[in-house]
Amino acid sequence: MPASILVINPNSNTDVTAAMDWALNIYRTDDAPTIVCRTIAEGPAGVESQRDSDLAAPLVSHLIANESDNFDAFVVACYSDPGVRASRELVDKPVFGIAETALTQSIQLGRRPGVISILEAAVERHWAHARSLKLDGFIVADLPIGLRVKDISDEEKASERIVSVGRRLRDEYHAETIILGCAGMARYRGILTSEVGLPVIDPTQAAVGAAIVAIRQDLHASPAPQ
Amino acid sequence: MPASILVINPNSNTDVTAAMDWALNIYRTDDAPTIVCRTIAEGPAGVESQRDSDLAAPLVSHLIANESDNFDAFVVACYSDPGVRASRELVDKPVFGIAETALTQSIQLGRRPGVISILEAAVERHWAHARSLKLDGFIVADLPIGLRVKDISDEEKASERIVSVGRRLRDEYHAETIILGCAGMARYRGILTSEVGLPVIDPTQAAVGAAIVAIRQDLHASPAPQ
Amino acid sequence: MPASILVINPNSNTDVTAAMDWALNIYRTDDAPTIVCRTIAEGPAGVESQRDSDLAAPLVSHLIANESDNFDAFVVACYSDPGVRASRELVDKPVFGIAETALTQSIQLGRRPGVISILEAAVERHWAHARSLKLDGFIVADLPIGLRVKDISDEEKASERIVSVGRRLRDEYHAETIILGCAGMARYRGILTSEVGLPVIDPTQAAVGAAIVAIRQDLHASPAPQ
Amino acid sequence: MPASILVINPNSNTDVTAAMDWALNIYRTDDAPTIVCRTIAEGPAGVESQRDSDLAAPLVSHLIANESDNFDAFVVACYSDPGVRASRELVDKPVFGIAETALTQSIQLGRRPGVISILEAAVERHWAHARSLKLDGFIVADLPIGLRVKDISDEEKASERIVSVGRRLRDEYHAETIILGCAGMARYRGILTSEVGLPVIDPTQAAVGAAIVAIRQDLHASPAPQ
Amino acid sequence: MPASILVINPNSNTDVTAAMDWALNIYRTDDAPTIVCRTIAEGPAGVESQRDSDLAAPLVSHLIANESDNFDAFVVACYSDPGVRASRELVDKPVFGIAETALTQSIQLGRRPGVISILEAAVERHWAHARSLKLDGFIVADLPIGLRVKDISDEEKASERIVSVGRRLRDEYHAETIILGCAGMARYRGILTSEVGLPVIDPTQAAVGAAIVAIRQDLHASPAPQ
Amino acid sequence: MPASILVINPNSNTDVTAAMDWALNIYRTDDAPTIVCRTIAEGPAGVESQRDSDLAAPLVSHLIANESDNFDAFVVACYSDPGVRASRELVDKPVFGIAETALTQSIQLGRRPGVISILEAAVERHWAHARSLKLDGFIVADLPIGLRVKDISDEEKASERIVSVGRRLRDEYHAETIILGCAGMARYRGILTSEVGLPVIDPTQAAVGAAIVAIRQDLHASPAPQ
Repeated sequence: MPASILVINPNSNTDVTAAMDWALNIYRTDDAPTIVCRTIAEGPAGVESQRDSDLAAPLVSHLIANESDNFDAFVVACYSDPGVRASRELVDKPVFGIAETALTQSIQLGRRPGVISILEAAVERHWAHARSLKLDGFIVADLPIGLRVKDISDEEKASERIVSVGRRLRDEYHAETIILGCAGMARYRGILTSEVGLPVIDPTQAAVGAAIVAIRQDLHASPAPQ
Repeated sequence: MPASILVINPNSNTDVTAAMDWALNIYRTDDAPTIVCRTIAEGPAGVESQRDSDLAAPLVSHLIANESDNFDAFVVACYSDPGVRASRELVDKPVFGIAETALTQSIQLGRRPGVISILEAAVERHWAHARSLKLDGFIVADLPIGLRVKDISDEEKASERIVSVGRRLRDEYHAETIILGCAGMARYRGILTSEVGLPVIDPTQAAVGAAIVAIRQDLHASPAPQ
Repeated sequence: MPASILVINPNSNTDVTAAMDWALNIYRTDDAPTIVCRTIAEGPAGVESQRDSDLAAPLVSHLIANESDNFDAFVVACYSDPGVRASRELVDKPVFGIAETALTQSIQLGRRPGVISILEAAVERHWAHARSLKLDGFIVADLPIGLRVKDISDEEKASERIVSVGRRLRDEYHAETIILGCAGMARYRGILTSEVGLPVIDPTQAAVGAAIVAIRQDLHASPAPQ
Repeated sequence: MPASILVINPNSNTDVTAAMDWALNIYRTDDAPTIVCRTIAEGPAGVESQRDSDLAAPLVSHLIANESDNFDAFVVACYSDPGVRASRELVDKPVFGIAETALTQSIQLGRRPGVISILEAAVERHWAHARSLKLDGFIVADLPIGLRVKDISDEEKASERIVSVGRRLRDEYHAETIILGCAGMARYRGILTSEVGLPVIDPTQAAVGAAIVAIRQDLHASPAPQ
Repeated sequence: MPASILVINPNSNTDVTAAMDWALNIYRTDDAPTIVCRTIAEGPAGVESQRDSDLAAPLVSHLIANESDNFDAFVVACYSDPGVRASRELVDKPVFGIAETALTQSIQLGRRPGVISILEAAVERHWAHARSLKLDGFIVADLPIGLRVKDISDEEKASERIVSVGRRLRDEYHAETIILGCAGMARYRGILTSEVGLPVIDPTQAAVGAAIVAIRQDLHASPAPQ
Repeated sequence: MPASILVINPNSNTDVTAAMDWALNIYRTDDAPTIVCRTIAEGPAGVESQRDSDLAAPLVSHLIANESDNFDAFVVACYSDPGVRASRELVDKPVFGIAETALTQSIQLGRRPGVISILEAAVERHWAHARSLKLDGFIVADLPIGLRVKDISDEEKASERIVSVGRRLRDEYHAETIILGCAGMARYRGILTSEVGLPVIDPTQAAVGAAIVAIRQDLHASPAPQ
């Protein structure tokens, strides 16, 4: 049986889940692990505050604990990484947060990231999270586009703002990669890459990629003889 | 034509190249990128000092610049990451150093690594390198086994020492992963995993995995319209 | 009408609530603010894991938001500070976490704290939390007594272990204060002070004291003319 | 006999002492500790340089050592905290510096402070002091109003500048609290609060509040049985 | 026989060597150590990239190892400090890098440096090097003049740009010293000092001065009885 | 007229002054600056506490301000660097603290220092001072010999303890240089060097050497045309 990965969208917005599912097609080759995306129906409409993230966290770890035997790795597809730490307590398989993975992927490339956020309020939350990961020192800037999660699918409006913020990250802050700081921005990776000319990291792609590699490397903790 | 990755062993020891080539079989599936391992014949016998690393660095970046059109990503398979920074100046494709990638992979797993080095002299070099990457704060300890690169293939002697150091990293320093701090230790990943019960990161596997993912994500820098 | 402070025990253990209520008598003078302690009945039995803390967090911020008009300041009486950040988004009155306040009170005294934890598993969570507050650099050590929250009221067993760990913090780690790293340890402040001879900080006392002072100073955010 | 706190103005300006005495009325309730403010007559006219601070330091610790038996806690009411560390060597009662306490009070509120200084020359001294406390990483900015200590009582001139700098700290530097970086600015707390809409910390109020709480908590070091 | 110091210009530009030789006349007094400047003929034309620095490094350590018995101290006169660390492995006499020495000399003066670089590309290399030395936190800014090494001897063009960048470092970044971030800028120390009014550190002068002092102090490592 | 340097012993112990004067003979060559050592008669008997350091500080800066026209550079020869920062405000000539200079000289050599202190109480003061200089991260350990300043001239007792602590710094803490953390230890540099086999830095020698070099480089701040 092939390996499989569960990708969890902690918000209840199925458009966001569909968008990330589409973006993960890059990994769907013949002998690749199965990738399953799931929406948490009881989750908040979008994770736009610490309150939303706190609401999502126990739902995420509950789901991962329940599915522990059915998947080989787990990805929490929300840029606040809700429930990731608790999930690691509960299962002995790799659990990836998309913010943590996107930031470290940029470091692997030897490049310092700039982050595109949705709302101004997300920026301080992102910094606090990056500090708790001790990765804040790598980020050159985190700039908001000023749209809510539900408006991200308005392609015309969102696209223009995302490209404009990407250019500012490159020109004013010397960003060397761009991280899409919201799981719902996946569809804009292409336009942003071609308009800004920097590597653009979709964090869900980064985390699922990391999960595939960890499975290949067999990087789970096994009980050791004492 | 499938994508391809060049993995460079900067020392002239073809045993080391063969061992890493074998370890990379985990990525050789039907539709995976081609992985080519190459020895730098003029390189030092092993990278056991800053002097050795300095000798290897310009050879590595010279080779990568020459092969720029023939591969989609490059991996420098020496735990001192010689020539990685210079190579990134010369080509616009992803270049991975195995130390940098192994350390960040451990961070992606939410786990703090302990490193197994070959000689005592490697330890301080590793710390200086980790400092220059600003990743030193994540490492719990770096302990040597006291063997030279050329003696790593003596399985009996090396195996015992590696397992013993791995246990110390786990028990005395609370390491949450073990990183094999030398490209030549790949063959001991299995025994170490089963004896110590922590995820064991072979840094060459980590870096080649990261290269495969970056190719899938199309993470190279392309010229942007100004 | 006098000012009032709501002190929230996020776990469902009413013994813990009663113990902290008793410890807060030091602030119950004629003209002091009213101090009300409340148990979250739906909370976890004790906060002994990240999972428990995640479960408590949304309950805490929900309660604080609901009681926003009825109190002048809020204290979250759990050493993991669950829900504190979200609560600050929701109300414009001061919200104190007892870990954050205890650590900073030690700094105010010019003294570096050692922390006494309940279980070994709490230690790493405490460090991660201290890192996210950027206060980890002040802490000399965090040592567990190896009891569960529900066993902390067993005075004989707990008292001996707490004093023993307090002495180790003083003698081996040069702690200059001792912080009781669990809201349920309040009753042992006296014995620990007399046996160890260092200032012993009960974090709930620290946070309620800080709340009283902030009320006197009128330190809430008011809307400014633009 | 009620507890009592000695608040020391290390400069010889009795206007400054009177202003802080007035600001401390917020703590003068029926059963509160007695608060005594005292001017050091031989102190410098104002602490406007490292030289001034160096002159004040031994006078401060000399006074505190002499009054050791007469008070339960001590506050050094100068934003350079002169003599605080030496005083802690000499007495076993809590000694508070107003800079150290104001900065940590802001951290207790979960808010990052901006500091208002008197002269440009104070700014670098403040940073050096904050570095020695390891609290510099929390401060968003320290901006001078360009007045000397003796001109701070000119209400018209000072008030306008303080409000203007407070607005810059809020708007340009995202300060989340404002700290009055000079003991003589106490009278402007009200106007600044109403004009800027952030919590405004008078550092002398912060330190005396911390002293009251520490007395209630009985946080002095007592000799321990060995 | 008097002591002697070998100063190595790792690039092949003899104009640069001549300029530094002239600048070192300040140390050529009657009883001073002999100072010999040497060009590495096979070195790169100038060190303007990591690739150039990598090429220079093994040449430098090879030369120092060969001359080990003929000199009492060694100075590597290139602001990327190529080969310094490897040289320290090979000889037991003091080896100074001019970047490392210039930065620490500024710290010895209690002043934070601003650095003048040649090309924009040098700036990021300088920061990476400063990070690996853990000295990056002292530098206020590093600004390029936009000239190549070979154009630095064009006095009219270079002089104007250097003075202009020096003024920006002083006025916009509050630099307290200016470091000439290229061994070839020695001739502009005078004009920069008189135009900017800050101490201007020629890093080759700094390093040779440090070498003279270390010789007087007899600071080499000698074998100790075990 | 030759340049001249004033070296100030801030304590009143003339034995200490005589010892440092003797140690500075290494710089007394034909064309070297004149070096004058002076005792502050009103200073404390030794700087063994923060209180002592506070007492010394204003005496030091007063003397330097008075002698401003008579010397070209100043050295404060006490390992607490009392009065150094204030003196830099008062004169525009270089002022060196011996702790700051010794630590940076070790960094210039690429070696991490261990420090030998006199009393246990000095250790924490040294760390606080190193933190305020942001140099604490370079120091491997600071260990006391347990003698008072006045007992340092008892050669038999002091010599044995200093060598023993030096060996521990080398063997247990991997010190790469030894710094004598008290101006009165100069006479033990020879024996420590030969017994421990590491470079041993007498901080007064380090600072006077730095002063000589700064004079040669003409590194004072001169008024700039605006």
